Amino acid sequence: MSANSIGKNIVLTSFGESHGPFVGAVLDGFPSGFTIDLNAINRQLQRRRPGQSALTTSRNEADEVQIISGLFEEKTLGTPITFLIPNTDQKPADYNALKDIYRPGHADALWDLKMGHRDYRGGGRSSARITAGWVAAGALAEQYLGKINDKPINICAWVQQIHTIESNIPNNVTRSNVDESPVRCPDLQTSKKMEQAILDAKENGDSLGGIIRCRISGVPAGTGEPVFRKLQAHISQYMLNLNAVKGIYFGIDNRTHERLGSENNDSWKTKDGALGTESNRAGGIVGGMATGEEITFELYFKPTSTIKKAQRTINREGENVILEVEGRHDPCVLPRAVPIVESLAALAIMDLLMDN
Amino acid sequence: MSANSIGKNIVLTSFGESHGPFVGAVLDGFPSGFTIDLNAINRQLQRRRPGQSALTTSRNEADEVQIISGLFEEKTLGTPITFLIPNTDQKPADYNALKDIYRPGHADALWDLKMGHRDYRGGGRSSARITAGWVAAGALAEQYLGKINDKPINICAWVQQIHTIESNIPNNVTRSNVDESPVRCPDLQTSKKMEQAILDAKENGDSLGGIIRCRISGVPAGTGEPVFRKLQAHISQYMLNLNAVKGIYFGIDNRTHERLGSENNDSWKTKDGALGTESNRAGGIVGGMATGEEITFELYFKPTSTIKKAQRTINREGENVILEVEGRHDPCVLPRAVPIVESLAALAIMDLLMDN
Amino acid sequence: MSANSIGKNIVLTSFGESHGPFVGAVLDGFPSGFTIDLNAINRQLQRRRPGQSALTTSRNEADEVQIISGLFEEKTLGTPITFLIPNTDQKPADYNALKDIYRPGHADALWDLKMGHRDYRGGGRSSARITAGWVAAGALAEQYLGKINDKPINICAWVQQIHTIESNIPNNVTRSNVDESPVRCPDLQTSKKMEQAILDAKENGDSLGGIIRCRISGVPAGTGEPVFRKLQAHISQYMLNLNAVKGIYFGIDNRTHERLGSENNDSWKTKDGALGTESNRAGGIVGGMATGEEITFELYFKPTSTIKKAQRTINREGENVILEVEGRHDPCVLPRAVPIVESLAALAIMDLLMDN
Amino acid sequence: MSANSIGKNIVLTSFGESHGPFVGAVLDGFPSGFTIDLNAINRQLQRRRPGQSALTTSRNEADEVQIISGLFEEKTLGTPITFLIPNTDQKPADYNALKDIYRPGHADALWDLKMGHRDYRGGGRSSARITAGWVAAGALAEQYLGKINDKPINICAWVQQIHTIESNIPNNVTRSNVDESPVRCPDLQTSKKMEQAILDAKENGDSLGGIIRCRISGVPAGTGEPVFRKLQAHISQYMLNLNAVKGIYFGIDNRTHERLGSENNDSWKTKDGALGTESNRAGGIVGGMATGEEITFELYFKPTSTIKKAQRTINREGENVILEVEGRHDPCVLPRAVPIVESLAALAIMDLLMDN
Repeated sequence: MSANSIGKNIVLTSFGESHGPFVGAVLDGFPSGFTIDLNAINRQLQRRRPGQSALTTSRNEADEVQIISGLFEEKTLGTPITFLIPNTDQKPADYNALKDIYRPGHADALWDLKMGHRDYRGGGRSSARITAGWVAAGALAEQYLGKINDKPINICAWVQQIHTIESNIPNNVTRSNVDESPVRCPDLQTSKKMEQAILDAKENGDSLGGIIRCRISGVPAGTGEPVFRKLQAHISQYMLNLNAVKGIYFGIDNRTHERLGSENNDSWKTKDGALGTESNRAGGIVGGMATGEEITFELYFKPTSTIKKAQRTINREGENVILEVEGRHDPCVLPRAVPIVESLAALAIMDLLMDN
Repeated sequence: MSANSIGKNIVLTSFGESHGPFVGAVLDGFPSGFTIDLNAINRQLQRRRPGQSALTTSRNEADEVQIISGLFEEKTLGTPITFLIPNTDQKPADYNALKDIYRPGHADALWDLKMGHRDYRGGGRSSARITAGWVAAGALAEQYLGKINDKPINICAWVQQIHTIESNIPNNVTRSNVDESPVRCPDLQTSKKMEQAILDAKENGDSLGGIIRCRISGVPAGTGEPVFRKLQAHISQYMLNLNAVKGIYFGIDNRTHERLGSENNDSWKTKDGALGTESNRAGGIVGGMATGEEITFELYFKPTSTIKKAQRTINREGENVILEVEGRHDPCVLPRAVPIVESLAALAIMDLLMDN
Repeated sequence: MSANSIGKNIVLTSFGESHGPFVGAVLDGFPSGFTIDLNAINRQLQRRRPGQSALTTSRNEADEVQIISGLFEEKTLGTPITFLIPNTDQKPADYNALKDIYRPGHADALWDLKMGHRDYRGGGRSSARITAGWVAAGALAEQYLGKINDKPINICAWVQQIHTIESNIPNNVTRSNVDESPVRCPDLQTSKKMEQAILDAKENGDSLGGIIRCRISGVPAGTGEPVFRKLQAHISQYMLNLNAVKGIYFGIDNRTHERLGSENNDSWKTKDGALGTESNRAGGIVGGMATGEEITFELYFKPTSTIKKAQRTINREGENVILEVEGRHDPCVLPRAVPIVESLAALAIMDLLMDN
Repeated sequence: MSANSIGKNIVLTSFGESHGPFVGAVLDGFPSGFTIDLNAINRQLQRRRPGQSALTTSRNEADEVQIISGLFEEKTLGTPITFLIPNTDQKPADYNALKDIYRPGHADALWDLKMGHRDYRGGGRSSARITAGWVAAGALAEQYLGKINDKPINICAWVQQIHTIESNIPNNVTRSNVDESPVRCPDLQTSKKMEQAILDAKENGDSLGGIIRCRISGVPAGTGEPVFRKLQAHISQYMLNLNAVKGIYFGIDNRTHERLGSENNDSWKTKDGALGTESNRAGGIVGGMATGEEITFELYFKPTSTIKKAQRTINREGENVILEVEGRHDPCVLPRAVPIVESLAALAIMDLLMDN
């Protein structure tokens, strides 16, 4: 067992290690005859790539995707689409020190225990680098969602909180608003504070977590299945497979559990001749199905586990050691995680839409 | 598409409507030769059944399970185990008023839109009644988890918060501690306040949500797969399919995203010759795999959507109406949801354990 | 692992042992709002049931199906449909002699080896009795296929050969033609010979195999997927899960491998404005997809393994013994297998049609 | 829907078109720590590659595999293994004539109908070229099967019949016996006749089909699941996804359906302290599970559909035309199909073994 595929109708199979020649993905089930916009895919990859600002790891990868199957004359064939992203800026020597020492909060100890054999150069399959393939595939799914219906399905994620710094962001924010901030927090004053907090953490050899919110509009009412394929369960399955995510909360905020039923229920109403709700505290989901209103949720990210600060841990022999990690690590993954969240959302929604 | 099965190795298929003759489940993949304890299954069903106290709906069901396949001479055959739970206390007349009116926060509007045909008597498949089958199957899975290893896998859930009433519960609480409280909150002083709050909500025709915490101990280190079958994603998929759950958070508390990396990382250590961690802020999961420490998470429940208080909504013709629901509804589902959470946890863990 | 479900879009989950209270099935994924014809389901069950003629086992079961979920006001709800068929004419005492002796050609030795625990009363899950649930579900799928398109999808199977007795049957034979023969061989003169051969085998305590052919018309061109879900692979997966089937051959006959390419290819032509072929040697499938012509295949059945004649075998202790089986067994399963083949065909086709 | 993955525990995902840069495959679920023998993989690829003798297409591909993920220091990581095989000898100009004409017996008409967009250069995904990825993955699975148990699992396939030329081959034939014949028919006298028949067909612009037999030894008794994952159904699902295969028959020969039960049953016996059978007419499978004896089956291949001889057909406008195909095609695919059958067998068996 290893489980590197996700989805039922549109299946993403992820492959590649952070220090092999490529990371990549196969996307199976994508409809035929769709004209892809390769630039748009690369734009999302650029938002995810390392080295894009002082806030991220200094590992520098071009992250230009190669598509080696599934396209003919720029249109999809209805066959598997394979994405390759070369690993070009590898410095495995940085990792030699980690070969025999288990980083606190990191999967390497468990890989050794479970697999008995591990690529210690940069995390292998546990590296966030493998999400480059997810983003390429998800960016294509997004293009599809933007064109499938008269009313396009639109996805936008942003940084809502870094460490304890909360922001105030109107729900109708756009992706270009988001990109005005290097932190991807479109409350620009707060963004400055977050930026400084991240740089401080970097300086201190420490790391920060936070909250990303995501909004998906245009999902047709009735999307999702009412028992074991509820819309919220399906999205959660995708999102909780993203490394640093520790939790998810659906709805307008994270206080639904503290409201009375009479305060929380969204009254049904007729909107432009279709079903709608007066308010949208539910975050666009009722009984496991989309109401047609905006789907909203937030994700809780832990601080990056790999930090420079000295930490107690053990080595492969089980002996107590003090670890001081060198190498190039993100002090805060949230700015780069925004396009990953959008991509996973696109894949999750597309998979459910194709049920019908 | 309908999607009434969950699990890969141990597959739960749920069937039945709240006002048909039975609700039930088929559990496929359960090992052969296991002696089942039918009483233990019925005990969990009793903890879930309606009518068990003044805090729950007055619908009164015996909820004694019948097992019609998969057993021979009280041992499992390694064939599908089918559970039937009769629906005995149906009062469909209560629901006639709801035939043409859409309850705010309830799935009936979306069933009509999606399916075109709906059993309006009590919610059909969207009724929490169908979880009786899940609890029967999960209670069997729990028995298995209790015997598979030298160190038994033990699951315990409890009510941590009702509405805004928080409690203080030591992590080593047991199921019998939990059952000392009719609310299933083992902080007995706080339990009294919760009890009163629920009765008040009932009196007011309103409803309350809250938080359930769950602890799973004994899960072997390495359980879970590191990419698209992460332990936290698998548990989330099961839990977010439970009707009123709006969110999940893994770890010792729900503040991981506000800690520094240096504050949050759990140092590895050698424990009784095996891998362990000094602290367990991570809630027993690193890189998608169990660390061997206790797995902990909490679930956020919305307040029950069906309430007596007058609400604005629409009818099937799309006209604005005022709804005042009669019928027998829970003012707060959390006390009865505790065994459901435990059962889903058992099924999720057993499914992952059988990967190997 | 046990694997009692089949299908991706329309999922059949089979449960029950031959000597438990019921055998049954859950059918998940069936569309909502479909008015079912319960009589038609029972008619197919009657064609499968034991005791219908002197040619079959004398076990006598009414085999009237009960549907306990998924229906409301005689229409499907789009929720799982659960079929129960009571086991009424059990004579487990007949099987006591088999408790410790392994029948040649029968699964009981392997159940003991694999599961360590077995219901020895009549084969448990290896009994053909469990196909009653398949037939109920398949008969419903057939109703759906008959109504989904302007041109109904029609399935007809018949006995083509018993032992070495070959028949000559025109391809446009109907189910009522088939039922004119107790053997379900619509070449009535040959049917008489087959009937006699079966009675002779019964008299001799022996058993016979043979060939069933199946024709499916009306399947839209393009049904089936071109790589790992080819129409022929999907049908084969269903059919080879039927106990006595040892092989399958697609096409107008079983000699395709002995023709030249120039003799075998079916020329494309335009038929009523749509794609068609001049001949149909391919049996309606090219490149894994339906051509729109009739799909035809045949199945090779082994002779029933349980016979009265004395046979060498071993007991549970591994000692050599001579076995003379008493009990009620079919000397030839083919007449009763005809509706099972039709039902599996209906489920396989419906599953593929729902891909789109 | 497109369905390019097969397997539950060891999942093969196939990708690539015949005239793209690569064909390839991802193999997920392979255990970690296994030292792979790259030469052995390339040897199987050489047996499949075009241009290996005068009997095959003159398309000439080196078919050396590149492994771009899943390996570290020559051992598997327990992560997805990705195989790339470059397409080097493409002559797409050969196919221009086929852009608008539908070949009889070929999938191109149905691709146009189903997908609306097709890579007309050489068949795209319907080309047998994509099986290079399957063979690479299957050859690795074979290595695993050879080492997993004390008694290695061994697979050998051979050509049993070409057109109407039957051969006589002892069941204990080896792969090196098979490779003494360019036809891969180890009855060397008959092989000569087959060779001549193939060359004659080529000369005539025609093609031939035939029979391949396959033997799998060493599969542990009890492999396979007794209901919907029967060993024979699982193997059939894999084999019938191979393009030219029209049928399959399990057992010592293809006459089981014409034997009496008393002639056909294999008596159980104790063999070296374990379960065994006196004879093995069943081909090593009873009740869907391996008996521990050799598993044997044969496959019926149609003659290659693409031939030079003039044929009637239609073009994309639906007009009648005469087609005379140029290009490089195999007059008989069986010699090259032998390693593909072995690879699919290896993958099917490994997938079932990993159930436990």
